[in-house]
Amino acid sequence: MTILLPEPAPLRDLIDAFKRLPGVGERTARRMAYHLLQNDVVGAQTLSRALDQATTTLVHCQRCNSFSETEICLTCSNPQRDPSLLCIVETPADQNMIEASHSYNGLYYVLMGRLAPLEGVGPKDLQFQRIANRAQESAVKEVILATNYTAEGETTAHHLAEFLRGQGIKLSRLARGVPAGSELEYVDASTIAWALMERKST
Amino acid sequence: MTILLPEPAPLRDLIDAFKRLPGVGERTARRMAYHLLQNDVVGAQTLSRALDQATTTLVHCQRCNSFSETEICLTCSNPQRDPSLLCIVETPADQNMIEASHSYNGLYYVLMGRLAPLEGVGPKDLQFQRIANRAQESAVKEVILATNYTAEGETTAHHLAEFLRGQGIKLSRLARGVPAGSELEYVDASTIAWALMERKST
Repeated sequence: MTILLPEPAPLRDLIDAFKRLPGVGERTARRMAYHLLQNDVVGAQTLSRALDQATTTLVHCQRCNSFSETEICLTCSNPQRDPSLLCIVETPADQNMIEASHSYNGLYYVLMGRLAPLEGVGPKDLQFQRIANRAQESAVKEVILATNYTAEGETTAHHLAEFLRGQGIKLSRLARGVPAGSELEYVDASTIAWALMERKST
Repeated sequence: MTILLPEPAPLRDLIDAFKRLPGVGERTARRMAYHLLQNDVVGAQTLSRALDQATTTLVHCQRCNSFSETEICLTCSNPQRDPSLLCIVETPADQNMIEASHSYNGLYYVLMGRLAPLEGVGPKDLQFQRIANRAQESAVKEVILATNYTAEGETTAHHLAEFLRGQGIKLSRLARGVPAGSELEYVDASTIAWALMERKST
């Protein structure tokens, strides 16, 4: 969309700032700016303050690398959690989904990304050495690799496994198979192939 | 998505603030927050400042009602534009599309919305009286109703026409018909029906 009308600079700057968000182009950024300015000025001010607060107060937890207000986050400092299990996930959203399963009570390490050679994200960017140090702490008995089942997530899990192997830690990966509640007819063929390969005797 | 992990308050506040944007739900808001905090802290600060600037410096132009830094915007105060034509549009984005056609040199009035009885937006909210006053200025010879061709846009045009009729101003509406460069096979039937009804003798 070419802009032809003279546009006030603060409006132009706001639209450009929205375009830095993932998945937001010119049209969406415009819609967001118009909406806030026309219908929700309080929302605009709230968002401005929230951004300011978040960028100034949030740090990475020194143990799990997730966002935290304190040096060690609430999850890592919770004595109820089992320190012998360490689950490695890509993002806080993934961490939250595992939590939602109500079947894990160990600790986490959040990569805050995945290996993406094409974007120049390598093992150093993900601080593999830091993960290795964390995994070697005496309390840790098992590391669960819970990166996504995408090409990049699988690559990350593979390289992490290579990196952590031979240090006497048990490594595991989330099981692959047919999703809960699904009808076989509607499951894609590669999932069925996986489920067959990794079938369990009952 | 249920949130189960203890989440730092500034992160939670930021996600909630993003959810006030149109079309942004919990997941998208989360992705935006993580992206800015992890990969673009400068972007977050830029957006915070842009929101702050825009909400404090932008006002509505007293003539065309669009966003402006000054009492009268640059378009309305441009002496090169023809004051005998007044084009009424719903949003600044629509105004910009008309400008992009390079075939209009008159002035604008931006409704900043449309009649939407279900959402409680009536003629008063759109300041119909103000539009009438603007249209009655002696320089204005023709008012072009360029609201959208949606149900709400059509309703708005209809009511505006009713409101402005009988005041000695010429009223017009953008022509309806087959879009430029289109093949009839791929044009929807109701557009064809319109184009037939409003066919022109050549």
